[in-house]
Amino acid sequence: MANSLFAFRSIRKVAFTSSASASVKWKGGVSLVQGASRGIGLEFAKQLLEKNDKGCVIATCRNPNGATGLLDLKNRFPERLDVLQLDLTVESTIEASAKSIKEKYGCLNLLINASGILSIPNVLQPETTLNKVEKSSLMLAYEVNAVGPILVIKHMSPLLKVGGTGIERDVAVVANLSARVGSIGDNRLGGWHSYRASKAALNQLTKSVSVEFGRKKDPVICILLHPGTVDTDLSRPFQRNVPEGKLFTKEFSVQKLLNIINNVKSHDNGKFFAWDGQEIPW
Amino acid sequence: MANSLFAFRSIRKVAFTSSASASVKWKGGVSLVQGASRGIGLEFAKQLLEKNDKGCVIATCRNPNGATGLLDLKNRFPERLDVLQLDLTVESTIEASAKSIKEKYGCLNLLINASGILSIPNVLQPETTLNKVEKSSLMLAYEVNAVGPILVIKHMSPLLKVGGTGIERDVAVVANLSARVGSIGDNRLGGWHSYRASKAALNQLTKSVSVEFGRKKDPVICILLHPGTVDTDLSRPFQRNVPEGKLFTKEFSVQKLLNIINNVKSHDNGKFFAWDGQEIPW
Ligand SMILES: NC(=O)c1ccc[n+]([C@@H]2O[C@H](COP(=O)([O-])OP(=O)(O)OC[C@H]3O[C@@H](n4cnc5c(N)ncnc54)[C@H](OP(=O)(O)O)[C@@H]3O)[C@@H](O)[C@H]2O)c1
Ligand SMILES: NC(=O)c1ccc[n+]([C@@H]2O[C@H](COP(=O)([O-])OP(=O)(O)OC[C@H]3O[C@@H](n4cnc5c(N)ncnc54)[C@H](OP(=O)(O)O)[C@@H]3O)[C@@H](O)[C@H]2O)c1
Repeated sequence: MANSLFAFRSIRKVAFTSSASASVKWKGGVSLVQGASRGIGLEFAKQLLEKNDKGCVIATCRNPNGATGLLDLKNRFPERLDVLQLDLTVESTIEASAKSIKEKYGCLNLLINASGILSIPNVLQPETTLNKVEKSSLMLAYEVNAVGPILVIKHMSPLLKVGGTGIERDVAVVANLSARVGSIGDNRLGGWHSYRASKAALNQLTKSVSVEFGRKKDPVICILLHPGTVDTDLSRPFQRNVPEGKLFTKEFSVQKLLNIINNVKSHDNGKFFAWDGQEIPW
Repeated sequence: MANSLFAFRSIRKVAFTSSASASVKWKGGVSLVQGASRGIGLEFAKQLLEKNDKGCVIATCRNPNGATGLLDLKNRFPERLDVLQLDLTVESTIEASAKSIKEKYGCLNLLINASGILSIPNVLQPETTLNKVEKSSLMLAYEVNAVGPILVIKHMSPLLKVGGTGIERDVAVVANLSARVGSIGDNRLGGWHSYRASKAALNQLTKSVSVEFGRKKDPVICILLHPGTVDTDLSRPFQRNVPEGKLFTKEFSVQKLLNIINNVKSHDNGKFFAWDGQEIPW
């Protein structure tokens, strides 16, 4: 059960009835990193904990017991990190996570959807040509890369509230990890049909959500981020063609992305930013 | 069986072995309209038959026996129209159609993917807010609006050849019916998450295919079309808010779209056009 993963529920007393007061109470802010078992998501959880000594982080992953990086982090930050089980393809795990966060924290000030799939041996291969495109790959990439993150926002959205995360931010932020190859305008090479289509769809869904959030009384800013080409499991099979100096460490990329997140303004709502702050065309 | 629907196979002798010669043989050209039971697709089939008295048209639909509009057309053009059963969600019907077309015609000079879903009573409702977004709707719209048309292109692509369709066109054309609301840059109202995301994904998939086709020896141009708001079953529940004079007849819209298709140039490959020829941002 996702709930049982809240090892520290008993330590921090939850005494709020309204989430408005909750938002004020968690002075360092409450951040959720979805897809934090490894790669960029894990690095987000790490930097959020390291850079803000009052911030609370909820990190979700499919298999908490096997997420060694998160277990290490939990040892370092036992009181400020909670690990919850969440599989994007199983909506009930998203709902259960939202319920747990509501009960313990009552609010969320930052939500980062960091998960993503590009290739899975024997299941999903980035297509080089149209004749390699398989329906199952298209559907799976869409389910994980586009549908999952939007369902996370759907179930977490009642919790999204203004609140500090170590910086003076006067908005709640939702940041979805997209990819430059999801840009249609920038698609000059073709291929990678399943991944590209799923990220374009994520961009469109995020845009729709940002329009709705833009109408809320409490400001919630929704952005899309391209982390650059980052040295993680996801990029590993494709790193040969990366030009010298263009393969980033996850430390560098996440530092840049957190900088964007922490300085986001209301006019950034619905935009798609690269790691260096440049806007990417749709 | 899809094959048995080729009622006129015995009338027109198929004696080609190579599709290059096939392409020359069918002087009026061979066009495939996928999703032709009603609405814009049916109108495409009609105008293609009426405007070119040598052109052959293959019209596909899910339920040929119930497609009264197509049955009428078949009565008017018994020799130049073939009706095949094709359901976008059943890949084997796409493959069977490709096989039938290969056997009878050996080539295709124009492929129009006209099918699309926006709302289905009790199944799919265009979402007004995020909390109405359902996983099943997202997946279904994607399967029909994005995945299906790409699988059609995949299975038909070996048949795509230069050939006249009554006009002097020196390229084969693939035209996918998209929608302006699929544009991310143009998304100012939000909502309609499933439909918008599926069309953005279709745009991205079509772009990838166009890049690949752009490298072929035989030119195949791949474009996306927005028909305007057209008076069909699809738009009917949403016509109240359409400004005066902005609801097109399908006759008008298809006339405009065929004009774009027939005048397409190689530099148009991969572009997204509205009915009036204006490019739509991604
Ligand atoms: N690395 C790059 O160069 C690059 C470039 C552009 C964009 N991006 C994007 O950046 C994000 C992070 O990528 P990364 O490089 O960190 O990838 P990664 O190292 O491969 O990590 C992917 C993460 O997604 C999680 N995930 C996969 N399927 C999931 C599911 N069904 N439910 C929940 N979580 C799931 C994985 O969890 P498990 O451990 O359980 O598998 C893992 O934590 C992705 O959205 C990716 O598309 C990366
Ligand atoms: N009408 C507009 O205002 C408008 C505006 C922008 C874009 N468009 C786009 O234009 C295209 C045509 O729309 P329309 O107005 O003609 O819609 P329509 O009158 O509702 O017709 C939709 C067509 O799609 C077919 N279809 C649905 N599901 C299918 C499946 N699983 N497999 C094969 N065919 C399937 C339907 O066949 P059945 O008869 O078997 O259901 C029907 O022929 C669509 O792509 C739509 O998104 C329309």
